[in-house]
Amino acid sequence: MDEFPQDYEIFDLGDVTLQHGATLRDAKLAYKTYGELNADKTNAIVYPTWYSGRHWDNEWLIGEGMALDPTKYFIIVPNMLGNGLSSSPSNTPPPYDAARFPHVTFYDQVEQQHKLVTSFGIETLPLVTGWSMGAGQTYQWAVSYPDMVQRALPFCGSSKTSEHNIVFLEGVKSALTADAAFKEGWYTEKPTKGLRAAARVYAGWGFSQAFYWQQEYKKMGYSSLEDFLVGFWEGFFLDRRDPNNLLAMLWTWQNGNVGATPGRGFDGDQVAALKTIKAKMIVAPAEKDLYFPPEDEEFAVSHIPNAELRVIPGIYGHFAGGDANPADNQFIDAALKDLLAR
Amino acid sequence: MDEFPQDYEIFDLGDVTLQHGATLRDAKLAYKTYGELNADKTNAIVYPTWYSGRHWDNEWLIGEGMALDPTKYFIIVPNMLGNGLSSSPSNTPPPYDAARFPHVTFYDQVEQQHKLVTSFGIETLPLVTGWSMGAGQTYQWAVSYPDMVQRALPFCGSSKTSEHNIVFLEGVKSALTADAAFKEGWYTEKPTKGLRAAARVYAGWGFSQAFYWQQEYKKMGYSSLEDFLVGFWEGFFLDRRDPNNLLAMLWTWQNGNVGATPGRGFDGDQVAALKTIKAKMIVAPAEKDLYFPPEDEEFAVSHIPNAELRVIPGIYGHFAGGDANPADNQFIDAALKDLLAR
Repeated sequence: MDEFPQDYEIFDLGDVTLQHGATLRDAKLAYKTYGELNADKTNAIVYPTWYSGRHWDNEWLIGEGMALDPTKYFIIVPNMLGNGLSSSPSNTPPPYDAARFPHVTFYDQVEQQHKLVTSFGIETLPLVTGWSMGAGQTYQWAVSYPDMVQRALPFCGSSKTSEHNIVFLEGVKSALTADAAFKEGWYTEKPTKGLRAAARVYAGWGFSQAFYWQQEYKKMGYSSLEDFLVGFWEGFFLDRRDPNNLLAMLWTWQNGNVGATPGRGFDGDQVAALKTIKAKMIVAPAEKDLYFPPEDEEFAVSHIPNAELRVIPGIYGHFAGGDANPADNQFIDAALKDLLAR
Repeated sequence: MDEFPQDYEIFDLGDVTLQHGATLRDAKLAYKTYGELNADKTNAIVYPTWYSGRHWDNEWLIGEGMALDPTKYFIIVPNMLGNGLSSSPSNTPPPYDAARFPHVTFYDQVEQQHKLVTSFGIETLPLVTGWSMGAGQTYQWAVSYPDMVQRALPFCGSSKTSEHNIVFLEGVKSALTADAAFKEGWYTEKPTKGLRAAARVYAGWGFSQAFYWQQEYKKMGYSSLEDFLVGFWEGFFLDRRDPNNLLAMLWTWQNGNVGATPGRGFDGDQVAALKTIKAKMIVAPAEKDLYFPPEDEEFAVSHIPNAELRVIPGIYGHFAGGDANPADNQFIDAALKDLLAR
């Protein structure tokens, strides 16, 4: 129902049996690549998308002279299942459409991305990186394919979704679904009241208390607090974002846990999974991230054999990783350069 | 529509013209007192209620041997206008009922409480204290009546509602009002879907990330995260809480600012107002309060002539002041004792 740019490729996944049992038939993975794969296929970077993000939302971190330099690397940005470009509630034909779209885990996401990556003949990845849910996929890559992922840099994310984070997302979900127009997912028109409510709930979480105290939104081009709530946040949730897609990704997020990787004997234990990571890592939470606080990542780092904690300083909170502040962008780029040099 | 205990008194306010111009006719202030007023009327403490709190919700901090000792002090707990006991959307007759209940400021709240207090012949207050919006009223008392308030101890609150706090409340409001059953405030049955959604939004804010990480809710008698969300939070919002009342109090909160006290020349300037406070103060934010962070109170304290910042340590976040944790209760009681001894 929404108009998207057609600047991406589709990888046919065929019939995908998901971790929780459903089979998504004729599934599609939308992706875009930047740069060229070298002859020995050793220069590929995977850079997954975040909650409701699309490949173009990742492009700010890619550029000549930056760590993710397309003149050096072959950068693959796979769109998450559920984001509206890859198989999602909004584009899957019945019977698995809309409210019947099946549960997809981070493990499922990475399995599909792995099919795409190996279809290029790639057997090693110098780097996987991503923001937020992209960080969750980064962790999952490092756990699912420890011999393939040489380096990993998750920023503003986690390897297991914390209970507080789950509660924050419950608030977003409850606001979205409180709108009667949502019709339990069988809406014929977008429940915009619910989307706008979800946006306002999210607004308090996305940036820190200090961000609002200092009215940093003015630097981002918003003229008042209300202008920021409408112009940035409501606009964000209305920008070709489908409620069922948002809820599908929200389920993935709430259920994030590398310890739930099947067939590895972790039995749900996040720490057991983290201990199996072989990648060199820099883990970069943001100082004032309200739903992925640095303490949680400090805990994760203490259980990863070869990881450094590097906190993104400042007041942008979670959106330190969301291309909202040039200084944060530079910090992340510098960390990526450091890691790639190891 | 709701059943309340009848353990309180009603003070007839008559016709009250509010700061924003509306006149609330035949308004009522519900209150309860603890202890006896002494002969020279110098032992009265005012202890206002918090967002949706009722006088009985304040009683945990009152008791023999505690700072608020009813054998020594005459403790007055006035119910906020809007809380369902004092004049509120839910109990005001037309035309100012329900969605038409007028805007009430902290200044208005304190003016009504002052009428009650002086009706006893009280001219001096050894202490005003309160949690959250009760802290907001405490600040307003200290600003409105600098020569009357000898001591003030606001805990987990602020003298001006920060922009981030306003945004958090926007999320609560949006979730509540997204329910079609709300009918713009003209509901005939409670919009419980909206109330439950608001509860889930609130859940992430009321306690800290670390509280959830450590599953402290189990100490509070809840068996799982979902049990806490339903049993504590949804139960909280459904316990005789009226949506229009919640929205009336939310407006008061969002618009909190001692600088808006009329007739004093502050012109909206919080700092100018704080400088006029004569009370000895201890200001007690909670270490991990997500909507009244200690930094904001540190700022306020720096502008009050005679105030000490004393941060409540620990992980209970805002509910450090909400009788959720015995250690926090003791900390607050000890601070009150210290202040009363000055």
